[in-house]
Amino acid sequence: MSSKLSKTHNLAWRKFLVAHVMLIEQIEQDLAQAELPPLSWYDVLFALSEAPEQRLRLHELAEAVLLSRSNLTRLLDRLEAAGLIQREQCSSDRRGAFAVITNEGFKMLDQMWSVYGQAIEKYFACHLDANEVKFFIKILNRLTRATSTKSESY
Amino acid sequence: MSSKLSKTHNLAWRKFLVAHVMLIEQIEQDLAQAELPPLSWYDVLFALSEAPEQRLRLHELAEAVLLSRSNLTRLLDRLEAAGLIQREQCSSDRRGAFAVITNEGFKMLDQMWSVYGQAIEKYFACHLDANEVKFFIKILNRLTRATSTKSESY
Repeated sequence: MSSKLSKTHNLAWRKFLVAHVMLIEQIEQDLAQAELPPLSWYDVLFALSEAPEQRLRLHELAEAVLLSRSNLTRLLDRLEAAGLIQREQCSSDRRGAFAVITNEGFKMLDQMWSVYGQAIEKYFACHLDANEVKFFIKILNRLTRATSTKSESY
Repeated sequence: MSSKLSKTHNLAWRKFLVAHVMLIEQIEQDLAQAELPPLSWYDVLFALSEAPEQRLRLHELAEAVLLSRSNLTRLLDRLEAAGLIQREQCSSDRRGAFAVITNEGFKMLDQMWSVYGQAIEKYFACHLDANEVKFFIKILNRLTRATSTKSESY
């Protein structure tokens, strides 16, 4: 069935998964050392901060986040308990509640970015020169276009 | 703090995360359509199938898997209930239980690979020619070496 897949391509796929898990875990370590919340919190706060009026319906948020999609409801409970987001009912229609980032949420986003941005630089960016990073983007664009899900939402 | 990070590198990092989530979700869709379990099951079964005597201690397994590290115990409960793995106590020392892949587990691994291998080919491999895939591996190797966690375990 899958005899077409070359060993080299299979290895590349595996290395893609390995690089992802190792980089994410390294960044999580850096955040924990700075006594900051996990990256999944940043992911939600960033998505809300970029949205029109800093708010998204829950199903929109579920599409916008890049981590923790399967546990999003529990994650939002924690962010709300910490005062970083609010849930707001929309009385004018029935398309469900919004999540809105609070001022405290914006402060946390900044605090986390100061560690996260440095980590991206240290573990990722500084290992790719200007040509390499362009090539890397070109390949990643091609891969996202190849999937059938809606790449436009990113 | 993170002013060094270029916009292009930041974009590349984001595209890396986007490509990962989109490819994984696309593969999950293909597995679901074939009425097969999620990719996290394959991940555990594959790690056990590659281990000496097809068994790993739970902490070794936690390092070997590339998905679902945080919910591993619950995942193993499901795999055991489905008869695909067994847990075995080791009476001779106290370093904890092993997980062992069963014959049914090997069959499931083969069944899942027939869909998963095709999906890797379709959404990933066929979009990278021989030079590109080598370059991609080179970059990913550099990135995994840059993290402090033990890349040797992969």
